[in-house]
Formats: sequence, structure tokens, C-alpha cells
Amino acid sequence: MTGNRLTEFASIFYPKSHAVIGASANTRKFGGRYLRTLLDFGYSGKVYPVNPQESEVFGLQTYASVSDIPEPVEFASIAVPARAVPGVAEECLFKGVKALQILSAGFRELGEDGTRLERELTAIAARGIRIVGPNCFGVYCPGGGMTILPGANLPKEPGPVGFISQSGGYTIRVPRRADGYGIRFSKAVSYGNACDVNECDLLEYFLEDPETKVIISYLEGVKDGSRFYQLLREVCRTKPVIIWKGGLTEVGARAAKSHTASLSGEEAVWEALFRQTGAIRVNNLEELLDTTIAFLHLGPVTGQRVCSIGGGGGIGVAAADTWERAGLSVPLFPAELEKKLLSIIPPTGASAGNPVDVGNPFPAPEMLRSVLDTVCTGTDIDILVIDEIEMTVPAGLQGFRPSDSLREIVQIPLEARDRFGKPVVVVMPVEAISADSLESEGERRKIRDFFLRNGIPVYLTKERAAQALANLTGYYRYRNSTHT
Amino acid sequence: MTGNRLTEFASIFYPKSHAVIGASANTRKFGGRYLRTLLDFGYSGKVYPVNPQESEVFGLQTYASVSDIPEPVEFASIAVPARAVPGVAEECLFKGVKALQILSAGFRELGEDGTRLERELTAIAARGIRIVGPNCFGVYCPGGGMTILPGANLPKEPGPVGFISQSGGYTIRVPRRADGYGIRFSKAVSYGNACDVNECDLLEYFLEDPETKVIISYLEGVKDGSRFYQLLREVCRTKPVIIWKGGLTEVGARAAKSHTASLSGEEAVWEALFRQTGAIRVNNLEELLDTTIAFLHLGPVTGQRVCSIGGGGGIGVAAADTWERAGLSVPLFPAELEKKLLSIIPPTGASAGNPVDVGNPFPAPEMLRSVLDTVCTGTDIDILVIDEIEMTVPAGLQGFRPSDSLREIVQIPLEARDRFGKPVVVVMPVEAISADSLESEGERRKIRDFFLRNGIPVYLTKERAAQALANLTGYYRYRNSTHT
Repeated sequence: MTGNRLTEFASIFYPKSHAVIGASANTRKFGGRYLRTLLDFGYSGKVYPVNPQESEVFGLQTYASVSDIPEPVEFASIAVPARAVPGVAEECLFKGVKALQILSAGFRELGEDGTRLERELTAIAARGIRIVGPNCFGVYCPGGGMTILPGANLPKEPGPVGFISQSGGYTIRVPRRADGYGIRFSKAVSYGNACDVNECDLLEYFLEDPETKVIISYLEGVKDGSRFYQLLREVCRTKPVIIWKGGLTEVGARAAKSHTASLSGEEAVWEALFRQTGAIRVNNLEELLDTTIAFLHLGPVTGQRVCSIGGGGGIGVAAADTWERAGLSVPLFPAELEKKLLSIIPPTGASAGNPVDVGNPFPAPEMLRSVLDTVCTGTDIDILVIDEIEMTVPAGLQGFRPSDSLREIVQIPLEARDRFGKPVVVVMPVEAISADSLESEGERRKIRDFFLRNGIPVYLTKERAAQALANLTGYYRYRNSTHT
Repeated sequence: MTGNRLTEFASIFYPKSHAVIGASANTRKFGGRYLRTLLDFGYSGKVYPVNPQESEVFGLQTYASVSDIPEPVEFASIAVPARAVPGVAEECLFKGVKALQILSAGFRELGEDGTRLERELTAIAARGIRIVGPNCFGVYCPGGGMTILPGANLPKEPGPVGFISQSGGYTIRVPRRADGYGIRFSKAVSYGNACDVNECDLLEYFLEDPETKVIISYLEGVKDGSRFYQLLREVCRTKPVIIWKGGLTEVGARAAKSHTASLSGEEAVWEALFRQTGAIRVNNLEELLDTTIAFLHLGPVTGQRVCSIGGGGGIGVAAADTWERAGLSVPLFPAELEKKLLSIIPPTGASAGNPVDVGNPFPAPEMLRSVLDTVCTGTDIDILVIDEIEMTVPAGLQGFRPSDSLREIVQIPLEARDRFGKPVVVVMPVEAISADSLESEGERRKIRDFFLRNGIPVYLTKERAAQALANLTGYYRYRNSTHT
């Protein structure tokens, strides 16, 4: 490991000056759209639009070439046709630009001619300039005022997640979707064809980066399998690395080839990699985000003994099936504990076993609290799940329940977590999803945000909760086992 | 098969008079809550509250016992303590009531004493009255003005789906959630411990019922495995039966026992049953509803060749992985077709292979239309998937796209379906999910509703779309294979 990635990549994430080459006032073009996006996002460094046809774009003085800029330029974004890119990149090198991102497509992913162009870029990079891309959407770093295409609406607040993405589309979709999970990013990088900066460089960076606690990634192919493997082993010792690997099926691999010209490798090879490095495998965008909030909020949980508390018999049966299928356990309670619970829950239509059925999804707060206290003091359960307990008033059932009981009920998961030091997660489905029930959806989101702000992961379904916790506990079990 | 279930069960679903035994003005009690719910839902038959302590409840004259009601009573709902239920049921039998639903819990699921009580009920039923329950939430039949506990807010509009549910909680959750899928019900029955009416009786009913096109179910245990198997084979020949089987894991089975005292049976046994009857297995509530909209809108599709059209390389890779993992195929296009597509899509940053990448998630309508036309005329694809093409303007990106192009883009899936007779599905994730982006969520739901109204299934994720279509095509392939 080079050990100086932090300094080197500062020019990528926190550039003080920024040329946009191929800038134009036409925001349907990449260069115009990128410049607009950067300005709208609020990048505060110096911006130099470059376009020989224009003297001014969006009120900024425009230069015919990067060489014409009278001041030093730390970073450049390039959005000119592929065949012109190597020339522009070389000019940037002469100008002393430290790093580039190439938004243009039309390289290796298009065949021989493009591959030749891309090789030229790699050679230019080797002469002293770092290149992100080509065929990428660039860099999102809220702390540095940098955002990707067309991410003017991404959160400006930074956070502890680093994202390495071989897909431009997902580099925008993931942070946008993550917004509703309360997930914030230190940096997200769409690095496209990786003519220079690749997944390994970024892993090294995120390992060193004190702003990054959890590393997530969408990968299609890997340039140097052996380096990647070694590095992953090292990084996973201190920071979790969650990988969504695209192109693991035969047809997926074919698609990856036409997307980023990646050879994506066989599923068996990747399975071995996951097993031997401790990296966390996820299979889709939802699992990526679900797993991330488990890591962000729950700490190093290795125990897999789940107690699920719901309000309905069917919910308990489904919960048991779900947790067991995900490889976690739903242990029987001691007889003594069941007896205590029986004195708390209703005599009929409820169940004192694990999963606990408190009788209906609208329990009185004092009863729910008492159940949690009893379970936490009477067992060595590792994880508590509050499963489909209603936290809002369902649409059309106003008056069904006093609203102060709702205010009280949302406190209970936090209390249990704080009082007993147990990880608590909440399963809260979207119950009312018709177009005219937006008000109750707004309520649901507010309560979800309340939990997330207070360190309680919230999941839309049991399945998604179970998979996220299997991923979390699997990682920490692996990490513990390799340290003993 | 008895062949007269329709007439016999008319008293359950369309009773002209209805006694609520255990009615009270206290809506925190089951009897009070049920009566309130029934009235709020708009049941239009005669309602007779029964409660010896009251002379009037909610403005209705109240009777001390069912025998005191001066007119005939077709149906009764019972919500008195378990030990009093057999006496009341017997009184109903004498009164000439045709059918009962017993909302009270405290029977077989509680052990020996409860089992004895429940046997008494079975014996009473055998003397000439049909009983739904005990330990259930009752019957939802919008056409008959009947709704379950506490389902005053369920849709009043009937539809083609019949629901057999051994869980009261899911009998309310499924129709409520289904509302946002545009799914409407002919009948939904929470039949609890099934002392009399059971899953087989209901299957027979739904087979005959002209109002029911698709049968869905949540089951824990089955009373008579052999009858169930034979019946399922028969029903599946003409109507799809989608089964969510709870309690298939060891812990799930334990929970099912305490819920409805069901012996839930081993996974291998159930797998064989699914394989040999054509019944469709689903594993959770979301898959149940996702699969239902595939059956409601797509007709008897057996072909599994999918063409996926998206706006982004990563989306195409993920789509290919997803469809292949679900067992469907994403075939290569003929070279001729790829050539034609190349003349339509952008020269860079797009892909003419299958999955097609039209370059970005905001394609111009004419381009998207042209891609669909070309694919439909140049291949023998069985199913078209419009995958994460943006149908709304993302929050914070107003002005990014002309709004008339949005109005046009939503027409394109319908046009392709109508012009080429191909099944089309749309994958439309929730992109903006923060609490302050409700407006864009409202837009998304309106477009989703537009598609659903027009017979295009809409899915939140590719995975869910793929699983639903695997379920759909699997069923029709099975049905075809058993007919040849």
C-alpha cells in the first residue's frame, strides 16, 4: 500500500480550482449539464469553463483551452467527444492539473478504436496526473462541494459512507435512495472504465480516510484480482466492505462487457473471495442500503439469537420462518420467562413464546415496554426486533388509538436499546400505499427518520431486516474468528 | 366436491340479517369494535346487537339473547368469552341462524380446555350451521357489505381475487396493502382455527365462485392433506392458486402451533405438493401481491424470454443477473436487430444488446418508442420489461425534462402491449424517499395507478418483478404440460 493516497486524492475530492472542459450553456449536453450541476450544488472553488466557441457560460468567463487559464488549475472535468479526450488530457498534464475526471463515453466499451484511445489516457496518467473514468459520472464529495452528473439534488451534508461504483447510474441512484435511509456519504466515485484510478486505489483511499467508516461498492470487474484480494483482506480487518457484484450470471457478465468492458468472473470465484476476505456480499441495491444502516447503527454484533416481538400470530409465524431462513436463530424462551410474559400479554389471541405475539399490532405502550423489559432481563438474546407494531394511525382509522400512546410507543425501542445495551431494529412496512394516503406515508417517514436519527435501523420487510442482520453478524463473526 | 358451496356460503358472504353477539358501545372490546366496523363499512342488511347488559348500542335496539330477536337471523358474529361460545352457538342453531363467525380466541391454540370447547363447536356445526373460526377476524366481502375486524377502511369496491387466510392479522394487512396495487377482492376469509369451515371448503367455494378469478392464501396447517391435495390439483386446472405457507421452518412451525394449533408439515412435503398440483408458492406478503398483479394483468404467459429495456449500463447488468437468477432468460438479439437498434440509441454510453441500454434513464419518448417497436418486430421475445425508465421528475431536478415528454412516455408501455400483444411490465423504484419528498412520491403513485388501471403490472424492484413473472410463467407451463 502506498500510504499517501489521502494527500494524492485530495485533488480529486477537495480541489480548490476546477476546469470544466466542454462546458456549454446547453444543459442537454454533458458538459453543460455538469457545469450547471456543479454550480447548483454549490462548489465554492474557482470554476473555469473551457469552450473555444463561447466567451461566457452561466455568467462565468470561458476559456478557449485549459492552457489559456491564467491561474493554476487543480482539477478538470472533461466532457468532449472521445477522440478529442487524449489531447485535452495531455494539455491538462502540461498545465499542471493534478487530477481529471472524464465524463465522455466511447472508449474501451465500444471496441478496438476506443480501447486504443483509452490506452493513450493510461499512458498520460502514468506521466503524472490521476484520471477518474472515462465513461463515468465523476466524483461526489459533499465536503469538497463536488457532485456527480446530474446530482445537484444530492445531500450537501457529508457522512461516514464511502462508495466505489463502476456504474454512473448507480452512483447517482444509490445516494439519492440512501437519502431516505439517513445515509450520508464521505465520497462516492463513479470511476467507469478505470483507465487509471481503479477499485483498488479507492479501497486504499477509503481505508486511510478518517471520514469513512463503512465502504460500499458496486463492481462489475476487477483489474488486478490478486491485489484486490490482498487489499480486501486488509481493509476488512478494520472497516466493513459491502460489495454488490454485478455480472455474476452469464448474461449479466455479457451485459457488463458491453457496459464497462469488464470481465466479471465466475460466481464460484467471487464466492471464494467473499469467504476468504470477510467482504460482505449483497445482491441488489436494497440489500446494499439495508446492510449499510445495520453497520452504521448497530456496532459489532456477532450473536445471532433474535427475539422478535409482533402483534399478531401470522406475523410471528412469518417472522420465525424469515429469521431462520436467513440463518439466524429464534431460540425458545426459558419456561420461567414464558410464565412472566403470560402475566403481561392478553390471556387469549397472544403468545408468550418467541416470536412474542402481544395480541394485536396496536399494543398499549406500558404493555410493550413491560414485554421488552422482561425479555431483556430474562434471556441472553442478542438482537431485539420490533416487528410490524403500528407506529402510526392507519388511514381511515383515526380515533382508533389515542395519539399520545403513539408518541410513547416510538420511545420504547430506544429505551430498550439504552437500558439493556441490546441492538434493536424495527420492521415498519408501508401499510397504506394508495395515491390518496400520502399523509399517512408522511407520518411513517417521520417516524422512520426519528428511529434512524436515533440509531435504530428501520426495515420495510422482515426479509430485508433478516438479510441485513445476517450480513452484519456474518462479518463480525468472520473478523473475530480471524483474530483468534 | 359438493357442488353447492355457492348457495350454502351465500349466508356467510351475503347475509341479509346479522346478529352481533357480545356487542357493546366500548370499541376497545372485540364485540364493540366489530359492530362499529360493520356499521362504518356500510353493511346494509339488518343488524341486531346482542348484549344482556345494554338496551341500545350505537342507536340500535339491543337484545338480551339471539333468541329474543323477533325476526329471522341469517348470520351471527360472536365475540363473547370462549367458555360462553358453545352455548351461544347452540342458541344460534336453535334460532335457525345459517352461519356464524366466532371472533373470540381461547380455543385449541390455548391447550386442552380450549380444544374441548372447540370440539363442542365442531359438533354443533355438524348439526346444521356453518362456523367460521374461532380465533379469527371474520369475513370480508365488499359485495355483501361485510368486513373484517377492524377493516372499516378496506375498499368497498369488489374485485376478482379470493383470499383464504389462516391469519386474522394478514386478512386485514393483505387487502389494505393490496389497495395500492389496485387489487380488489371478491371475498377474503380469516378462518382461524377452522373448527368447521376450512381451507378445502373455501377452495371449493372459490372454484365455483364466478366472481373469483385468482385465489390467494396464507396457510399455516391443513386439516385433511389428501383432500387438500386432490382439490388443489382440480382447482389449479382452471384458476391459479397462490399459496403463502407459513411455518415451513422448524421455528415457524413452533410459532404456528401456538398461533392456530396447526401442524404445519415439512418443507419437503409442501415442495412436493407445489410441484404436483401447480399451486404457486410464494414466501412473503410482497411476493403474494406481486404475483397476484402478474396473474391479474398478463394472461396465460408461458414463454420466458425477457427483453429488458433500461437507461443505464449498471441497470442492464443488474437486470441480466436478476432475470437469469429467477430462471427466466435474457436471450441475445440477432445481429440484424442489434444493428437496427444501434441506429436508434445514442452512439456512446448505450447498448444495443439485451438488456438494452438507451443511454440514460430519461430517454426521449420517440427514441424509447422506436426501440420497443424494433425489438417487438425483430424478435420472438415473450415479455417486455421497462426497467427504471424515469416516469416522473426526480425531486430537486425540476426543469430537467419537459413535462409533456413525461405524459408521452407513460403511454409507450401501453402502446407496445396493444400493438404487439406482448406482456409488458414496468419496474419503477421509489427514488425519492425522504420525508420531505412526498410530492414526488405522490406523482410516482399516480403513474403506478395509471399503469395498473391499464393492465400493466408495476414493480418496485427488478427482483420482485422477476420472481412474480417466474411464478406466472411457471404456473402456465405446468398447466399446459398437464393438458398434453
